[in-house]
Amino acid sequence: MKLLNKITEPTLLLNKQKCLMNIRRMKLKTDKSNVQFRPHFKTHQSIEIGEWFRHEGVSSISVSSLKMAKYFTEAGWNDITLAFPVNIREASQINELAGKINLNLLFIHPETVKFLDMFLKNPVGGFIKVDTGYHRSGVPASDIKKIIELMKTIRNSGNIRFKGLLAHTGQNYHVSSKKDIVTNYFNTVDQLQKLADKTGNSKDKIIISVGDTPSCSIVEEFSGVDEIRPGNFVFYDLMQYELGSCTSDQIAVIMVCPVVSVQKDRNEVVIWGGAVHFSKDYILREKNIPSYGRVVELNKGGWKWTGNDEFLASVSQEHGIVKLLPEKIAGIKPGDLIGIIPVHSCLTANLMKGYLTLEGEKIDHLNGRMKS
Amino acid sequence: MKLLNKITEPTLLLNKQKCLMNIRRMKLKTDKSNVQFRPHFKTHQSIEIGEWFRHEGVSSISVSSLKMAKYFTEAGWNDITLAFPVNIREASQINELAGKINLNLLFIHPETVKFLDMFLKNPVGGFIKVDTGYHRSGVPASDIKKIIELMKTIRNSGNIRFKGLLAHTGQNYHVSSKKDIVTNYFNTVDQLQKLADKTGNSKDKIIISVGDTPSCSIVEEFSGVDEIRPGNFVFYDLMQYELGSCTSDQIAVIMVCPVVSVQKDRNEVVIWGGAVHFSKDYILREKNIPSYGRVVELNKGGWKWTGNDEFLASVSQEHGIVKLLPEKIAGIKPGDLIGIIPVHSCLTANLMKGYLTLEGEKIDHLNGRMKS
Repeated sequence: MKLLNKITEPTLLLNKQKCLMNIRRMKLKTDKSNVQFRPHFKTHQSIEIGEWFRHEGVSSISVSSLKMAKYFTEAGWNDITLAFPVNIREASQINELAGKINLNLLFIHPETVKFLDMFLKNPVGGFIKVDTGYHRSGVPASDIKKIIELMKTIRNSGNIRFKGLLAHTGQNYHVSSKKDIVTNYFNTVDQLQKLADKTGNSKDKIIISVGDTPSCSIVEEFSGVDEIRPGNFVFYDLMQYELGSCTSDQIAVIMVCPVVSVQKDRNEVVIWGGAVHFSKDYILREKNIPSYGRVVELNKGGWKWTGNDEFLASVSQEHGIVKLLPEKIAGIKPGDLIGIIPVHSCLTANLMKGYLTLEGEKIDHLNGRMKS
Repeated sequence: MKLLNKITEPTLLLNKQKCLMNIRRMKLKTDKSNVQFRPHFKTHQSIEIGEWFRHEGVSSISVSSLKMAKYFTEAGWNDITLAFPVNIREASQINELAGKINLNLLFIHPETVKFLDMFLKNPVGGFIKVDTGYHRSGVPASDIKKIIELMKTIRNSGNIRFKGLLAHTGQNYHVSSKKDIVTNYFNTVDQLQKLADKTGNSKDKIIISVGDTPSCSIVEEFSGVDEIRPGNFVFYDLMQYELGSCTSDQIAVIMVCPVVSVQKDRNEVVIWGGAVHFSKDYILREKNIPSYGRVVELNKGGWKWTGNDEFLASVSQEHGIVKLLPEKIAGIKPGDLIGIIPVHSCLTANLMKGYLTLEGEKIDHLNGRMKS
């Protein structure tokens, strides 16, 4: 790859074709299931990659911060769910954005609804964040009393229109099999449907929104829901591969890092590529040894997954230590490049602040812009 | 603190007075020991905080990337050690920078010296990176043959002037007591001195450079070295506190994060503050439970360390889950702010891209600028 000759620093390489295929595959699946596709843009945080979604007919999105919502609003997106519990300290900015686009917010507490409603002059949509077992945030699905109270508070508000029930089945990141992911999906859907049945009225449609990448990738069709919001599938990563969400061939990004030192006696190379590039998510290998990424072979067409047991064994601020096979280490020298699949592409992209496609095109990322 | 009323998003709060004291304390210690102070600026990455060092009489610095070196060059620093094994893919940029300032580089391999020397039209200083037991990078201190070969290659080069031996005693981050840190310091110094004795000639002074924050904070004087390069001490953090490098009162930064949800039944609050703000370094509590930060009390003067067992128990992309005492959780509501000492202030500052002082002044960070 001629492209590699120009790389001087840690670079996030994007296989655009794989990325486009990931987008298309998920869009076709939502079409087939007749559900709304509201992809989470927190993974790529890129106006340009957003356009690839638009090209596939996507018009509604999810984001995880108001800053991200503003960024995509500037790029013409006008139907955005801020899929994070509302931060009332941003009330005036929320009101301002709600004057420009259809903005949906997540609520957990009646007092938040009341506080925000006093501030709002422009209407927003309101989802109830339901906890279906992840126990990060949300009203427990079992707490029907609280859900009804919250729903009433929203319905009685002046400018928050009740939209539905939203859950994130994050427990899917702690399973031991693909079967568990399917079970968790149906369990979440079942809990949300029962809540909708118990709380619905003839006036409002209650939208049921779910959307982690593992379940959206693994279940065959999206029965029982109205909307899905996966994000990571746009790139996938090593974590998703380990969970069974994707094949090795569907992973659309790798890090490319310069070798700065070779320690043949330890079968290690030191790369310029550390916690400020990869972040620090890891998967556990046998004997609880962490891996911060998996080595791939760089080639003319981009990269190739190998069966070799080669991985990023540790990261400090700028350094990474990569374990290679003895037969590989023999041919490596400082100045060579190593390709590595990141463990968590969302966090890696957030740090890298941009992408380079295999065709040599630079792709933007929100963080590549001046801080607001 | 009136300042807190204006905070709407995760914010890295800086106690400037504590920071100035940390700088002054280390500078006085280097003066007393009569060693060169070459602080590592990778922790703060701030031109403005750099000026606080200059005000104390500091004129030489360390950085961990060429980008950082350029950034501080623009701010008038002209004696910079790029304390990271040289990346030959940046050869032409290195040459360009070497035309503007006194630039020192780190070498591990003779072939890297030869390759770079072909490129250089401007002189640079060359240190040999010695591994004294951390086993991340460097020539093992025991490999005298390789060190002599590397030294000769540097001395025979056209534009790389041999400066000395440099080590980072990173093993100090994996010790069980302050005593071990002192032992590691003297062990590193001993290894470097022996190497200098064996390889020195009458022509060149061999500079011995060490510099992790734990040992620079804990040893009483810097005997046996010429230069120290600590970085983290400018702020310190929870990791350093746990190691015994600092008192709780010397920690100069905290994160301030809005509460977005309260789960009284679990004694938890959800904050806006996750892996894209704190990064993902953690310390292990009893029973191997991770802590990503320690809760402090926000007050009029800034913050106060408490004896309470309250901590940041998990972080995902934007969410953090904070464990609070039952008596505290009772009074917390969405929209409140939580103060948290980060585990690793270098990585947190790198993500936060800027600081807010207790006086309300915004302080720059390299990453707050437009990406080059």
